Amino acid sequence: MLVNKKHYKTIWLDENDNMVIRVIDQRKLPFKFEIAELRSTEDVYAAIDGMAVRGAPLIGAAAAFGIYLSTLEINSHTNIRDHVSNAARYLASCRPTAVNLSWAVNHSLAKLNFNDPVELISEAALNTALEICELETENCRKIGINGLRLIEDIAVKKNGETVNILTHCNAGWLACIDYGTATAPVYMAKEKGIKVHVWVDETRPRNQGSKLTAWELGENGIPYTLITDNTGGHLMQHGMVDLVLVGCDRATRQGDVANKIGTYLKALAANDNNIPFYAVIPSTSIDFSISDGVKEIVVEERDPAEVTEITGWSDGEIRTVRICPEDAIAANYGFDVTPSRLITGIITENGICSASEEGLKELFPEKFID
Amino acid sequence: MLVNKKHYKTIWLDENDNMVIRVIDQRKLPFKFEIAELRSTEDVYAAIDGMAVRGAPLIGAAAAFGIYLSTLEINSHTNIRDHVSNAARYLASCRPTAVNLSWAVNHSLAKLNFNDPVELISEAALNTALEICELETENCRKIGINGLRLIEDIAVKKNGETVNILTHCNAGWLACIDYGTATAPVYMAKEKGIKVHVWVDETRPRNQGSKLTAWELGENGIPYTLITDNTGGHLMQHGMVDLVLVGCDRATRQGDVANKIGTYLKALAANDNNIPFYAVIPSTSIDFSISDGVKEIVVEERDPAEVTEITGWSDGEIRTVRICPEDAIAANYGFDVTPSRLITGIITENGICSASEEGLKELFPEKFID
Repeated sequence: MLVNKKHYKTIWLDENDNMVIRVIDQRKLPFKFEIAELRSTEDVYAAIDGMAVRGAPLIGAAAAFGIYLSTLEINSHTNIRDHVSNAARYLASCRPTAVNLSWAVNHSLAKLNFNDPVELISEAALNTALEICELETENCRKIGINGLRLIEDIAVKKNGETVNILTHCNAGWLACIDYGTATAPVYMAKEKGIKVHVWVDETRPRNQGSKLTAWELGENGIPYTLITDNTGGHLMQHGMVDLVLVGCDRATRQGDVANKIGTYLKALAANDNNIPFYAVIPSTSIDFSISDGVKEIVVEERDPAEVTEITGWSDGEIRTVRICPEDAIAANYGFDVTPSRLITGIITENGICSASEEGLKELFPEKFID
Repeated sequence: MLVNKKHYKTIWLDENDNMVIRVIDQRKLPFKFEIAELRSTEDVYAAIDGMAVRGAPLIGAAAAFGIYLSTLEINSHTNIRDHVSNAARYLASCRPTAVNLSWAVNHSLAKLNFNDPVELISEAALNTALEICELETENCRKIGINGLRLIEDIAVKKNGETVNILTHCNAGWLACIDYGTATAPVYMAKEKGIKVHVWVDETRPRNQGSKLTAWELGENGIPYTLITDNTGGHLMQHGMVDLVLVGCDRATRQGDVANKIGTYLKALAANDNNIPFYAVIPSTSIDFSISDGVKEIVVEERDPAEVTEITGWSDGEIRTVRICPEDAIAANYGFDVTPSRLITGIITENGICSASEEGLKELFPEKFID
């Protein structure tokens, strides 16, 4: 998508040095647009852990590049199988909620034949990482086409009036490689000349909404209004939201959806006001091995400082301010689980289905063969 | 309540100069504890408008002192009736949502006989303001006693384990004169030796939770954990909340409750998880003239800068940081309305009732005589 009118992806192999991966450093957005270099497994781990790269599809792709970089770290004293396997475990442990991370790591490992010469193993790992990027991009493009139908239908019902879409967190192209998940249908609607407007939840504690979604929508010419996370219910009560589109860190086979903390509250409000609530999910984010999301999904607890402090821009620099008493105790749960009963449907690369085992089975029959 | 182990109220007449009203300047909490002086109607308006004083009961009391101060502004060229009436209109216009403001202004005006000498009018205005402070304090004390029963019942059911209470915004003593509304039962429970713990919603955009509720609970020895506004649903899904207690800016005769934006979302989550959700409301916050809160209550829209910027403490000073792109458009609705169907009950100074016309009629029959 566009940054300052130039096309970018969120992660790519350096054009001149194929031992370097480049990523947009998302910690500094929207204040500074900087490209970071990843040269080692540790660099990738630190980028995911520190959230320089974040978003379920993107951290999967980054981890696959991490596996590739680990194959470059082999010397005469290293057993390549052990080294790469250790790197894989290390990378997979970095963030527990998104299933893409462990999926990408396992998928990469499965493509490697450790009896091959190191160069071939490296080549295979690189190709796998590039293929994952292609796959995620293609998934997002198809999701955009599938989700566009919903927006078109609403636009018709509203006689061409602006379609108001609410989103939580950043499930935009910054969370993926390109297009985004929840944003893909919005970008495609705009391309087709449909009037759209996005209500952007700021998404405390890390403010991915105010910092990333607002920025990427602005750079790509989508009108939006930033709101606090408390606001969506009021807007829905007053007919100011036509559609809710959210991303997903891990969905279950019965259609429960773990997404950024607070998503469940928006689903309740949408349900209470009969507003369609769709989770936008590439199949790489579905964990077909579990059913009950509330019981089975491990919700990541993060540093309480993300709650007690907020980072922003002041006097020409990025600053962090404390927003509570110095001795305040805080808790920081990263995600919540929205039960499938509150979800109108799931938008995937294979089509739209109900949030249920039956629905997902129709779109992904191969995943239900035991 | 206690600040640094010393007893305070939020507003009082200066001990040595009865032309000066003193208030805790809540804009600087929890970073600086400062007392501000109010010497004119304009000072009172600015304090309410700028939220140096806030909270439905407190802004009512402050406005009554504002009427008193207006009576001190009379000179030989002034018609006292016109001057005080203008001051009353001016003060009442300051914030539209809380009914206490217009109630206190009208109540004060009704106590004045403009045929009396100016000194007598001033005296009556001052006495009315002091009486409103007494009334609100007494209301909060009774509310504490009434609400305590709910906490005691839960403590018994939990065999003395800690009772976890979630609250939104600040309906503490800082929003009132003393005790608070939603906090009064908590303070009384602690006094009785019941183990309580409060989940404090930070309450964006102005963070009254992280800045005021956290601070006042800490100063008064109540264990609490600060959370983002997105977190409550997840906690309720996992049995970590026993009771929700929120304040109220304006309730209707059928028990709909306008409170800080985001309250409705917590009510939905409580309802979805069968957790008791009580609104804590002195009768001065009930507008018996209206029924349907969603349709009839004017929700204040405030400065978008409260959304795009956050104020906190950094490097030894209070600083404001921007948390979004420089050109971001933001909307800032101050309140939302929780329909009575989501409210387990209303705690008032006269007892606890269902959130319904029948319930309120039992406790306040005199308000239902047409």
